[in-house]
Amino acid sequence: MDSPFPIALLQLALDGTPEENLAKGLFWTRKAAARGARLICLPELYRSAYFCQREDPRFFDLAEPPDGPSERAFSALARELGVVLVVPIFERRAPGLYHNSALVIDADGRRSGLYRKMHLPDDPGYYEKFYFAPGDLGMRAFATACGTIGVLICWDQWFPEAARLSVLHGAGVLLIPTAIGWHPREKAEQGERQLEAWMTVQRGHAVANGVYLAAVNRIGLERPDPAGEGIEFWGHSFVAGPQGEILCRAGKDSEEILLATVDPGHLEAVRRNWPFLRDRRIDAYGGLLARFLDAGQEGP
Amino acid sequence: MDSPFPIALLQLALDGTPEENLAKGLFWTRKAAARGARLICLPELYRSAYFCQREDPRFFDLAEPPDGPSERAFSALARELGVVLVVPIFERRAPGLYHNSALVIDADGRRSGLYRKMHLPDDPGYYEKFYFAPGDLGMRAFATACGTIGVLICWDQWFPEAARLSVLHGAGVLLIPTAIGWHPREKAEQGERQLEAWMTVQRGHAVANGVYLAAVNRIGLERPDPAGEGIEFWGHSFVAGPQGEILCRAGKDSEEILLATVDPGHLEAVRRNWPFLRDRRIDAYGGLLARFLDAGQEGP
Repeated sequence: MDSPFPIALLQLALDGTPEENLAKGLFWTRKAAARGARLICLPELYRSAYFCQREDPRFFDLAEPPDGPSERAFSALARELGVVLVVPIFERRAPGLYHNSALVIDADGRRSGLYRKMHLPDDPGYYEKFYFAPGDLGMRAFATACGTIGVLICWDQWFPEAARLSVLHGAGVLLIPTAIGWHPREKAEQGERQLEAWMTVQRGHAVANGVYLAAVNRIGLERPDPAGEGIEFWGHSFVAGPQGEILCRAGKDSEEILLATVDPGHLEAVRRNWPFLRDRRIDAYGGLLARFLDAGQEGP
Repeated sequence: MDSPFPIALLQLALDGTPEENLAKGLFWTRKAAARGARLICLPELYRSAYFCQREDPRFFDLAEPPDGPSERAFSALARELGVVLVVPIFERRAPGLYHNSALVIDADGRRSGLYRKMHLPDDPGYYEKFYFAPGDLGMRAFATACGTIGVLICWDQWFPEAARLSVLHGAGVLLIPTAIGWHPREKAEQGERQLEAWMTVQRGHAVANGVYLAAVNRIGLERPDPAGEGIEFWGHSFVAGPQGEILCRAGKDSEEILLATVDPGHLEAVRRNWPFLRDRRIDAYGGLLARFLDAGQEGP
């Protein structure tokens, strides 16, 4: 698709039951399509509260297979509305084997592909390495009725390698479902800087790659352990253009449909003027495959 | 060095003769050291106007060998003042073989190393591929009295791979001598967005790597061809902290010493909280060594 097309991010509160959240996701997808969106993306792990705040094996019950209730419902809706959807799921792949994944569903309802989160955090309140196996499908891009799109998930967004690989696979827009927020005790001192860093590193990917980038976060305080202080998910979903410019940005605590237009012609013009893909020194990047280049080491 | 130390960027107008510019560089270096700086960095190709606005073989006369007048003068000054210096040079390596380089001179006056610009632009007004051979020493880091530092030059600053490799080599601060400006005819429409993108992508490197980043630009309209409109170098030298926060920023048209403090303890605290180096998926980055991953290609 070479014509401009509208995309929508669904910034939602998602502390309901899986049934409620699925219904909510369908409802807002329908609303976004009615407003003209051709490509619609939900937040990370949309079907439940962000359970990774603590390690509890019972939460594995929330998982679903790739062809489970989320795909069945959203495939039917994609086909009905003729829209492309990015639907994150808590993927049950086998007993004891789970991923933090996202389905890419094309406008005819068929699955374009599956992305499995490659970079997993393990930080206080974000115990993802307990729940999820690292993705084994790599950074990718997916052919859809809206052109080739990339999907990354949350922690991936801090890694320039992830954005670059998606773009080398042909992505013209990166969709990044997210669940990120403030620890209430840190918010006053660190909150503004954390939010700004989160925006900046992603806008940087847009600049470095000449790509549209759309990050969608949830909102609301989720406090699964009444003795804990929980996480205040900070919203601020946004879409950046291929020079890193903010095209639109949501608030910190409102449920919103965030609409923006992706223009492949503009993307091509930007890349012609800033031809970074032309000038990459691929002969000198071997060290990127190393964990660290200890003194004198040149890398693999 | 684990204690905090002050660094200085010298934002200068550099349209004088090589002798004038060398004298100017020495004068401002002395001033910055007097204000307490322990690590001082000059702008790209400081010893002349930015001659790459047009292709003219006579400009090769401006080049000097690595142990030429710049190194002789700045080595003596570094030793006298006990400061670490980053001194960009137009390097003459052999007849017909030139590089856009930077000397790293340690506080005892000895050369810590030489960096040769790895990513070269070829854009209207920035005809660097005519003058310079691509660097063949790779992205690196240099041991100095101010710890391990990385050096990149201008166009390098748009490439996340360059910043990442410098940090994998151990850099705690990236110095980025630069010569970037507006085409006067584009400034009104594009200027603000270009400047913002330039800041954003570099601040993004600081975030993604947990590293201090200091970019130093020249100022002034340089118009070597009276029939042309020249380039208005946009100043705005800045230092970012390891969460991408702006520590200080110069104006657009003033000669300035920009002072900031690098704190290795703070850097370590930031990286402990945002452990991106821990979570890189080096098993899945092979595609970064490809120019592009055409459909179905997984990369080298």
